[in-house]
Amino acid sequence: MSTTPKQSPRELMVTTPTDREIHIERVFDAPRERVWQAFTDPKMVAQWWGRGNKLVIECKEVERGGHWRYVEHAPDGIHGFEGRYREVTPPERIVQTFEWDGMPGYVAINSMQLEDLGDGRTKVMITSLFHTKEERDGMLSSGMKDGLIQSYIALDAVLAKLS
Amino acid sequence: MSTTPKQSPRELMVTTPTDREIHIERVFDAPRERVWQAFTDPKMVAQWWGRGNKLVIECKEVERGGHWRYVEHAPDGIHGFEGRYREVTPPERIVQTFEWDGMPGYVAINSMQLEDLGDGRTKVMITSLFHTKEERDGMLSSGMKDGLIQSYIALDAVLAKLS
Repeated sequence: MSTTPKQSPRELMVTTPTDREIHIERVFDAPRERVWQAFTDPKMVAQWWGRGNKLVIECKEVERGGHWRYVEHAPDGIHGFEGRYREVTPPERIVQTFEWDGMPGYVAINSMQLEDLGDGRTKVMITSLFHTKEERDGMLSSGMKDGLIQSYIALDAVLAKLS
Repeated sequence: MSTTPKQSPRELMVTTPTDREIHIERVFDAPRERVWQAFTDPKMVAQWWGRGNKLVIECKEVERGGHWRYVEHAPDGIHGFEGRYREVTPPERIVQTFEWDGMPGYVAINSMQLEDLGDGRTKVMITSLFHTKEERDGMLSSGMKDGLIQSYIALDAVLAKLS
């Protein structure tokens, strides 16, 4: 399934370009440099990535080969996430692995592109590639979309404070 | 391509069951419990995994969710390898991720099965799954087979000392 529906401002678009991929798009009302900062500065990531839950950033080495590890303290328990950077090209592209402690050894590749829309806004595009369709479908049914919607609303607020 | 050629004792078999997989098989002249030990005890792994080069095992937590990291001191330089355990079922199965520092963020899934041949020998079967055919082909052309042949000859010697 590959769809390109009309996109409203701040709406999270989720599509499935291939059997092993998820593609998301979201527009933020901030210049690309600021969005880059919000995705790469640990102090800023801690303010939005955990959807309002406490987020402990144990490690975040934003460079090729560097590792990252976040621990989210959610009402239903503590969830660790980690991965490694494959590519870091400021201010436009990051490719990194993504793994949740609850399913250790199941690794997705997240390729993020930041597009400068030329009017002070930035489009974030992320394609996640999984080893199997089953892993991709598991991610889709995990509540991923609702979690991202919550996180990105928190990110809107962080970006608004910066301007 | 899927082939099942006749296998000589101690010959390393390498096949490609699908576009994103490599499958290897090798018979060792030792009981399954000993082969399991040689693959999971850090002190023993250090004696063979590095093909005769010095191998520093920085981390090896052989359990679901645990991490491993080896650093090989080879004549051409220092090479780090790391990953995480998805499944550990003694003495027959380990599934783990595999990543080389030289290509950070490129992750293969290695599923290893140890088969008790019933005559004091053990067949080791490992299937590696890659995210793309290009990554799989890169591994095939990296000298992987020669490296494994050397490592497994070193492992033969380690197993012989155990018996």
